[in-house]
Amino acid sequence: MSSLVIPVVVAGVAAANLTDKLDVFATFFFDMEINEQIAFLALVFAVIFAAVGLSSSSSSKKEAIDVVKDHGSYALSKKPVAYPYQQIVAAKTDKEKFLCLYPTLRDEMLEHMKQNNEMIPEAVSWAQRMMDYTVPGGKLNRGTTVLAVFQTLKGRTLTELEVAQACVLGWTIEFLQAFFLVADDVMDGSKTRRGQPCWYLLENVKLISINDAFLLESFVFSILKKHFVHLPCYSRLVDLTLDIVQKTEFGQLLDLTSQEEGTIDLSRFTLERYKLIVKYKTAFYSFYLSVAMGMNMCGITDESAYDVAKEICMIMGEYFQIQDDYLDCYGDPKHIGKVGTDIQDNKCSWLVVQALDRCSDSQRKLLEENYGRWDDKKVENVKALYRELGLENVFKAYEEESYVKIQALLQQVKAMPKEVFEIFLSKIYKRSK
Amino acid sequence: MSSLVIPVVVAGVAAANLTDKLDVFATFFFDMEINEQIAFLALVFAVIFAAVGLSSSSSSKKEAIDVVKDHGSYALSKKPVAYPYQQIVAAKTDKEKFLCLYPTLRDEMLEHMKQNNEMIPEAVSWAQRMMDYTVPGGKLNRGTTVLAVFQTLKGRTLTELEVAQACVLGWTIEFLQAFFLVADDVMDGSKTRRGQPCWYLLENVKLISINDAFLLESFVFSILKKHFVHLPCYSRLVDLTLDIVQKTEFGQLLDLTSQEEGTIDLSRFTLERYKLIVKYKTAFYSFYLSVAMGMNMCGITDESAYDVAKEICMIMGEYFQIQDDYLDCYGDPKHIGKVGTDIQDNKCSWLVVQALDRCSDSQRKLLEENYGRWDDKKVENVKALYRELGLENVFKAYEEESYVKIQALLQQVKAMPKEVFEIFLSKIYKRSK
Repeated sequence: MSSLVIPVVVAGVAAANLTDKLDVFATFFFDMEINEQIAFLALVFAVIFAAVGLSSSSSSKKEAIDVVKDHGSYALSKKPVAYPYQQIVAAKTDKEKFLCLYPTLRDEMLEHMKQNNEMIPEAVSWAQRMMDYTVPGGKLNRGTTVLAVFQTLKGRTLTELEVAQACVLGWTIEFLQAFFLVADDVMDGSKTRRGQPCWYLLENVKLISINDAFLLESFVFSILKKHFVHLPCYSRLVDLTLDIVQKTEFGQLLDLTSQEEGTIDLSRFTLERYKLIVKYKTAFYSFYLSVAMGMNMCGITDESAYDVAKEICMIMGEYFQIQDDYLDCYGDPKHIGKVGTDIQDNKCSWLVVQALDRCSDSQRKLLEENYGRWDDKKVENVKALYRELGLENVFKAYEEESYVKIQALLQQVKAMPKEVFEIFLSKIYKRSK
Repeated sequence: MSSLVIPVVVAGVAAANLTDKLDVFATFFFDMEINEQIAFLALVFAVIFAAVGLSSSSSSKKEAIDVVKDHGSYALSKKPVAYPYQQIVAAKTDKEKFLCLYPTLRDEMLEHMKQNNEMIPEAVSWAQRMMDYTVPGGKLNRGTTVLAVFQTLKGRTLTELEVAQACVLGWTIEFLQAFFLVADDVMDGSKTRRGQPCWYLLENVKLISINDAFLLESFVFSILKKHFVHLPCYSRLVDLTLDIVQKTEFGQLLDLTSQEEGTIDLSRFTLERYKLIVKYKTAFYSFYLSVAMGMNMCGITDESAYDVAKEICMIMGEYFQIQDDYLDCYGDPKHIGKVGTDIQDNKCSWLVVQALDRCSDSQRKLLEENYGRWDDKKVENVKALYRELGLENVFKAYEEESYVKIQALLQQVKAMPKEVFEIFLSKIYKRSK
């Protein structure tokens, strides 16, 4: 408001010097016909609006240049972005539209390595092979959800540019996912991922995969910069992404330190810790991030809207993981595409947490002696105990309960269509794979 | 400029409807005395400025709230920062002042884990131990340089707040350095670091160290946010840091792919590749980043100033690494604190690159048969070849040459004091450790 002091003082001083002339001017004005008076006022307002427009366009332009110039070499956004509009229009489903964008983004990153960072052909082709192997092969639920959320929030047919931008934002989550998975597989010593050997197991890759994970993360910010630096949501998107990446790493820390290597200590498997791991390691980036990105792109700034979205996404994320743990033991391997090994792997699964919560001393002893061993007989003993404790029904009750909880929360969603969350719900509730 | 179309059209239409009334108005205006005309114009301008002021103040206020509120949980900067001013004043050297800030930053990150991210005591104490083990034990040259650069650029005694902020910025580079080193040690299978076992080798740590490296990186952005989000340089600092992290990862990619595991193929060791690795893997974050951070904090936005700084820092970074490679072979182990093993480790060292550049076919065969083996006799053969090729003198000539080159470049530095770079020069030229 301090910017008003100077003009008010000037106006006061000026008016004092005009006294009777203002009367003459008033007479002149009120002598005019009504349409002339309107025209006169319109003229004055046109001048004022022009001044406001000039002032704000020059200041916003200055800002844009600041952001874009930015130490030269990182100025990805100087060239206009060429989206594959023809393919997007021809694509029938959201997933098909989404897939159109991958080659564009990958090639931009390779170009960024060559043009802005002098990378030699060998390094560029390494990055190409690495991205193709680790990024696009998943179910792409996280990425396509950004498009669906944005579409729902807008409540109208999106322009081709909007579709392209929502897909780009979705791909940043898929790149993040690839970053987490490449690193997690090394840390967990996993063998396969998406039906192929883990990236780090490939001949000539090995521990170079750690640096590859870093690169995938860094590409997320290069993509954000190239495609969104000129938009008002840019700095919020960068901050949101940095925050969610950190939260996921906090979740991984909780998970990795929940079991000491080589020892089997079930005392660390509590429901509280379980929920915290799921929330931080999975729910933030798999559920909340897609919604929050769509909301940001849509220009929503009301913080309470993000809080409600977060609450709902956390419950859905928890449900999703609990279901995953349940299917690991009770799911049909034909449906879920793998044979579960959580028991052998000494995982802090929802089932073992529930078992520990309701077992007798002797049952606990049985768990301690049989959990976390690669021994078919011992795995069978644990499964028999799960049956004894009726964990299947415990899960069914939990499933109903969390569904009711979400429906109640959905009633509180006012700032946006409830359909945003129903996109997720329909994908995950009562799934068998 | 499109914001001008509407007012211009309105003005045109309005003026057309006023025709003769504008003449009357003009007569009225020019009939006034000069001071009354000025007062009238002042009145019009006061109204316009008030409108502009209202419009821009409302938009800039909205923006400020956007940055700080920012999804609630990440709003580190809501509380005022408490710097250890008494200790800073009592500290005698730059390094002592710099060290005062470490406990503050570490405790802030632990608090951030507890308060904003629900981390349990076990995870918080893990992070504390991890930071204490990996962050503060180095020479701290990179970090303290930020303070020295900022001091030099300001050209006056810094306030205590300025000292504290420059140190905080310096510590972000030390956190980055810890992130790179923790991960590099895993990738290289190193044994010791700063006179103690590498972090990943500790009992109970092992591959959790990969996630720890991620956390160290994420703390860099939490620190920037907490301490700089309210300053105009904030978004430039975030972009600069993201860019330099990526460049360092590109450098690591070049380095890791310069030798295939298990094979010894000297054809990939070229001077071009060597220079590229050094530039990207070391020079950007070890030299340029300290200078660019100090410049940013000082409000320098002229891009050409950053370009000159980059050019000088790249030559110094290259010299620093070449010297490192030279000392690995020719330095006194008593001075450098370790026995060099570049030859055994099959490293793309400046010495082997120079040897390959000037050897005969038979000498090349000798290199191929003796380089990269843990065999004292073979190491001695390589060293004998280095002596035969006079590499000590090649180094001395290079050292002189790069010194002259830097002195010439320093003449071009106009936007800031040359002393900024002399801080570095005095630390590294003709060092023996």
